[in-house]
Amino acid sequence: MSLLIVGTMAFDALETPFGKVDRIIGGSATYAAWAASNFTKPINQVSIIGGDFPQEELSALGERGVAFDGVEVVPDGKSFFWSGRYHLDMNTRDTLVTDLNVLAQFDPKIPDSYQDCEYVMLGNLAPAVQISVLNQLKNRPKLVILDTMNFWMDVALDELKTVLGMVDLLMVNDSEARQLGGEHSLVKAAKKIQQMGPKYLIIKKGEHGALLFYEGKIFSAPALPLEDVFDPTGAGDTFAGGFIGYLARINDISFESMKAAVIIGSAMASYCVEKFGPTRLKELSPADIDSRVNEFVTLSNFEIRS
Amino acid sequence: MSLLIVGTMAFDALETPFGKVDRIIGGSATYAAWAASNFTKPINQVSIIGGDFPQEELSALGERGVAFDGVEVVPDGKSFFWSGRYHLDMNTRDTLVTDLNVLAQFDPKIPDSYQDCEYVMLGNLAPAVQISVLNQLKNRPKLVILDTMNFWMDVALDELKTVLGMVDLLMVNDSEARQLGGEHSLVKAAKKIQQMGPKYLIIKKGEHGALLFYEGKIFSAPALPLEDVFDPTGAGDTFAGGFIGYLARINDISFESMKAAVIIGSAMASYCVEKFGPTRLKELSPADIDSRVNEFVTLSNFEIRS
Repeated sequence: MSLLIVGTMAFDALETPFGKVDRIIGGSATYAAWAASNFTKPINQVSIIGGDFPQEELSALGERGVAFDGVEVVPDGKSFFWSGRYHLDMNTRDTLVTDLNVLAQFDPKIPDSYQDCEYVMLGNLAPAVQISVLNQLKNRPKLVILDTMNFWMDVALDELKTVLGMVDLLMVNDSEARQLGGEHSLVKAAKKIQQMGPKYLIIKKGEHGALLFYEGKIFSAPALPLEDVFDPTGAGDTFAGGFIGYLARINDISFESMKAAVIIGSAMASYCVEKFGPTRLKELSPADIDSRVNEFVTLSNFEIRS
Repeated sequence: MSLLIVGTMAFDALETPFGKVDRIIGGSATYAAWAASNFTKPINQVSIIGGDFPQEELSALGERGVAFDGVEVVPDGKSFFWSGRYHLDMNTRDTLVTDLNVLAQFDPKIPDSYQDCEYVMLGNLAPAVQISVLNQLKNRPKLVILDTMNFWMDVALDELKTVLGMVDLLMVNDSEARQLGGEHSLVKAAKKIQQMGPKYLIIKKGEHGALLFYEGKIFSAPALPLEDVFDPTGAGDTFAGGFIGYLARINDISFESMKAAVIIGSAMASYCVEKFGPTRLKELSPADIDSRVNEFVTLSNFEIRS
């Protein structure tokens, strides 16, 4: 099934304990599209870029089935730029620079060619932009997933609550879940968040895996224990892309399928962090993905005997 | 198979965000014996207590198959006392009081009646005491597991390294694994620790579950997401008791059995934290345990389809 991805396409400058890059392709929609393109097509991309965004990057995504009718190009503008430095534990980072550039004028228009999308991923953006996208869709998609961050909880909580009422699934990390739910216990926070709208909730816990909540049920997915996390940038967007790409492929949104999708997303994210930016994602073969997914099976499989 | 447990039997005073108790039974060997007694007997307890240790607590354990030939009673001495206050997140705590009392003179003697033990749990104690116990065993047990803590890494590292060379499995939490292995990455720390002696390593991550390492293999066990952790005291000892009690029952120490044992230990620990001290452990029926273990199966079970 076709998939709609809304998010940023950008440049990043990254510094980790393993090295630095001054300018590498990034953005939530870039990572999500690379991950999702392993599972489904077309991927209808919605974003905004400047004239500086490399044509070869667009071509590479185009070859993977990504459509750009919904990507606005501002020829004399500069693409969104983010620069960050990761601490030694890789769980915390300092933002060094955020240049919105063309993102400041992002007012997405959904082309008619995208209207048949059944699966929608709203990447982390201003809630008003996310609402605008949903309001432009003529038919309710089968599944709408939302990513957001603590920043929007601080500065746009009312609009965030509006969009929460319009989506099926929210994806946040553990500290964001605690902030949004107003509870330290993730189980309690999850209940509060589900009451705000999303029937499904995924809480990402980085090196500790992820939790999927639906009605009274919980699924706990492990993270693959890694010797080194080279660069965590984009891991969450890659998770989201792998998750929704897999669901679009099997075209099923049962809880059982979502559990499998969490594993697929986790496998994709575990590859993402192995190299700077989306470099590793671009190299992956279907066999690589199968092999990593099998590692997750081995990692979490057990049998009790009495 | 019979099980030998070495550790403390003590009084605790506990303060959590949910309340406080001034004096409740505690100690690593107490928690471990309560947990293990659901799976195997006899349990050959090795500890030291004062004349103040309640007879009814000994009787209750005795009814569960716990033997006390190796528990030294100092009639005019006082039992070990520990007092702690948990922070709101329940992951950190302040020690308020540590009164060693009779524990200061603990020099365990292994009775002849304990010599046939195939399964041995060395609870968190001075490494010299742990070494002394192992040196008194005439036959090498089938499985020796060791618990320790950062305190012994700080003050008795050489002796700790000696005992590490004598055991099969070490059980520590994530910060202790990082300290002992000298690596932030748990995978790298695990390799370093395994080179110190223990073929098996369990890293406990509290609300994030546990990792089991053996040769190049890793098993990741989830923790049950709980609305409230009422009192975390003894959860690690309960985990250890459930783990080794189950292995003693099935009398198999393959990696597959250890994976199941980690789930059993996790299930027991998830009950332990529901009430103050060992209160909840004392109430459990076999059906309660089966039901909680099934929750772990549901929590972590998934199936990928293509």
